[in-house]
Amino acid sequence: MMTTIPDALYTADYVVTQNAGRDVIRRGALAVAGDTIECVGHADVLTTLYPDARRVDLGRAVIMPGLINAHTHVSMSLLRGYSDDKALQDWLQEDIFPQEAKLTPQLVELGARFGMAEMIRSGTTAFYDMYMFEDSVFHAADEMGLRAVLGESTTKFFPTLVARDKEAYFDLVRRYSAEWANHPRIRQAVVPHAPYTTTPELLRECRDLADETGALFGMHLAETPWETQQCLTEHHLRPVAYCSQLGLLRPDSTFFHLVDVNEQDMCMLADSRCAGVHNPASNMKLASGVCPARALRAAGVPMGLGTDGPASNNAHNMLREMYVSSLLQKVHALSPTVAPAQEVLDLATLGGAAALHAPYIGSLEPGMKADFIALDLSFPNMQPVHNMVSQLVYAASGAEVCLTVVDGRELYRAGVFTTCDYAALLEEIQDVLAWIRK
Amino acid sequence: MMTTIPDALYTADYVVTQNAGRDVIRRGALAVAGDTIECVGHADVLTTLYPDARRVDLGRAVIMPGLINAHTHVSMSLLRGYSDDKALQDWLQEDIFPQEAKLTPQLVELGARFGMAEMIRSGTTAFYDMYMFEDSVFHAADEMGLRAVLGESTTKFFPTLVARDKEAYFDLVRRYSAEWANHPRIRQAVVPHAPYTTTPELLRECRDLADETGALFGMHLAETPWETQQCLTEHHLRPVAYCSQLGLLRPDSTFFHLVDVNEQDMCMLADSRCAGVHNPASNMKLASGVCPARALRAAGVPMGLGTDGPASNNAHNMLREMYVSSLLQKVHALSPTVAPAQEVLDLATLGGAAALHAPYIGSLEPGMKADFIALDLSFPNMQPVHNMVSQLVYAASGAEVCLTVVDGRELYRAGVFTTCDYAALLEEIQDVLAWIRK
Repeated sequence: MMTTIPDALYTADYVVTQNAGRDVIRRGALAVAGDTIECVGHADVLTTLYPDARRVDLGRAVIMPGLINAHTHVSMSLLRGYSDDKALQDWLQEDIFPQEAKLTPQLVELGARFGMAEMIRSGTTAFYDMYMFEDSVFHAADEMGLRAVLGESTTKFFPTLVARDKEAYFDLVRRYSAEWANHPRIRQAVVPHAPYTTTPELLRECRDLADETGALFGMHLAETPWETQQCLTEHHLRPVAYCSQLGLLRPDSTFFHLVDVNEQDMCMLADSRCAGVHNPASNMKLASGVCPARALRAAGVPMGLGTDGPASNNAHNMLREMYVSSLLQKVHALSPTVAPAQEVLDLATLGGAAALHAPYIGSLEPGMKADFIALDLSFPNMQPVHNMVSQLVYAASGAEVCLTVVDGRELYRAGVFTTCDYAALLEEIQDVLAWIRK
Repeated sequence: MMTTIPDALYTADYVVTQNAGRDVIRRGALAVAGDTIECVGHADVLTTLYPDARRVDLGRAVIMPGLINAHTHVSMSLLRGYSDDKALQDWLQEDIFPQEAKLTPQLVELGARFGMAEMIRSGTTAFYDMYMFEDSVFHAADEMGLRAVLGESTTKFFPTLVARDKEAYFDLVRRYSAEWANHPRIRQAVVPHAPYTTTPELLRECRDLADETGALFGMHLAETPWETQQCLTEHHLRPVAYCSQLGLLRPDSTFFHLVDVNEQDMCMLADSRCAGVHNPASNMKLASGVCPARALRAAGVPMGLGTDGPASNNAHNMLREMYVSSLLQKVHALSPTVAPAQEVLDLATLGGAAALHAPYIGSLEPGMKADFIALDLSFPNMQPVHNMVSQLVYAASGAEVCLTVVDGRELYRAGVFTTCDYAALLEEIQDVLAWIRK
């Protein structure tokens, strides 16, 4: 017996469900009621079942779960291509930090809106972000319609750009908590920057603050061998063990990068049921090393996939990220059978849901949130279709995305953004060039 | 004093010239006369200089040299995504070879046309191809308007699909030579498959045939450590030394892959002035290893960049290939300063020209062939523009291409293909699915 009448019925040549059986439905359909998926199945069946629902036939297209970018700094779209091909410390000290020191809430919001437009355009429906002036990102995400976990990041170097001291930072987190409580799509995380830019006390207090405010907890961790050495020198522990000792490894924690982790680290992470995020392109571009994403998954760590910020990627393109993830894992293991297409698609959907601690997204099944995208299969790189999942992971460029829906709301369809005036945003982003020269 | 009146004047926000100074011109222009570039410079200057030329203002776009795909098997677009994530020998023996045994000239031509549409759509203007029934590819390239070096490939396993014996194969090459001599855009290459699928005699005779017919010479070489072992066992030489001994290393030779090469191999290749091609995505996906592209260049080997066939990539996207090339080299060297954006752009343009032995393409300069493309910079991933070359290598997806010109002729502009009925081709390619099931 039906209890809800769907508002809309989307049909297309293929529906990639990412359900337990990983079903791919030919001539499939998705019935949406409000912000929720009501039914997924064959187009002819659902058309008969829901004759009065608004019909959106996408034709030669594939409907799939929205992609989840589990680690980024969205406002860094401002600095896309500003500096590349430098050693990490030079890149940060000479180019990135001096520009970031000139940031304003207005600029961060512009960067956030623009970066979100890029995500919407390339099929990302949810993301986990950390940056400065994060209230600007909260406002942008609210208006742009994306789902997000957002965190105001901090280091021990007070006064920071946003807080004169630790207490002021904590107050900021408490203020966001009050302001954004019970938002249908946005959740806060407490996100200290990294072990090497914080103190044990600050980290412990951040973890307590997450509990106090009901926020999630996230941090960059084990990104480079340099970090490991630094942590061993200062704390006589490897980064993961150091976090374990501080009580940071918890089921609602998410750790970004996890490049330099050994077997013992992996066991500690898995035992604590916290999540990890693989950022292959950023790790390659900054030559940080190779995250053992497959071994982490095998050890039992739920893994998501992220682009990292567009200053080190240099895009918010999760379809490209899946491709790079598979290729990197294959060549690193010297085995073409590792990181097969389905496993990598899982990283970017179900894995992302785990990394965002949002079990109500990541697949197209009744009762899940209606976060989905469609890709136009008439692009030459998308034909012929022998295997839809292979096509998504290995052949798609990202620009095929022709529909992006979050919570049942269309944010983008066939060239048109519904939650921003993209043409105006494109002119506004030119202001960044003047800011850089300042 | 002007001797030629340009037919067309293309203007755009940026022109990336790839000239000796690697000039990037703001508000640039390109004047084209027939199949040749007449002048490159500032839009206001060229507009005054050529007031009567047909004006094409591309606005918020970048004009750049057409990308050169220095190694592919274009007709394998038929098998895109048919089989992935398998060990090389299983992939070939279980999936690829059985399908290829059913190939017909008609299918190869369909695959070629479709793959060329994909290249045109993503900014490739020239390519180096080897496959079976290559006359179908000659015809397709002629009609689709791309520039190409094309070779009918052979192994020692006669009868092959195309020739009952060696003499029949040589006759085929001679026939193509007569048929396609003096084509303005298409040149033949003699392309035995690889050392491990040929005999020393066959390779020597192929090399002689190239000289006899004025064709170029190309071959897969040193693709995997397995090939090296096989060559050492059978010929007591590493693959490059084996080719050297057979007289195959010559200035008009091009070798594809060069993954498993040591310093001595690099010196031999450099001394002979032959060219090499880096295929990072294919080498990663098949887990063949990492081509020391940078060391090869440093040793003096002119290097191009290629996608390899779309059954092992799985796209003909040279913008993605540049991205993957840079990232792979950086993480392999554990140094973010290697393979900077400009170097990788050189691989795909000037390097490609060297690999195709076509010094008249690869840069936008007076007297060069008018092979160029434009990318639309209004995509969110292409903004803001701090560094145009970084944007092309690290941020572009390939779908931004809005204009593709070869020999002064527009093959694609703003969604419209001029040398094929793309909508019809898209229906035709569906026939492949029936062929697979046969």
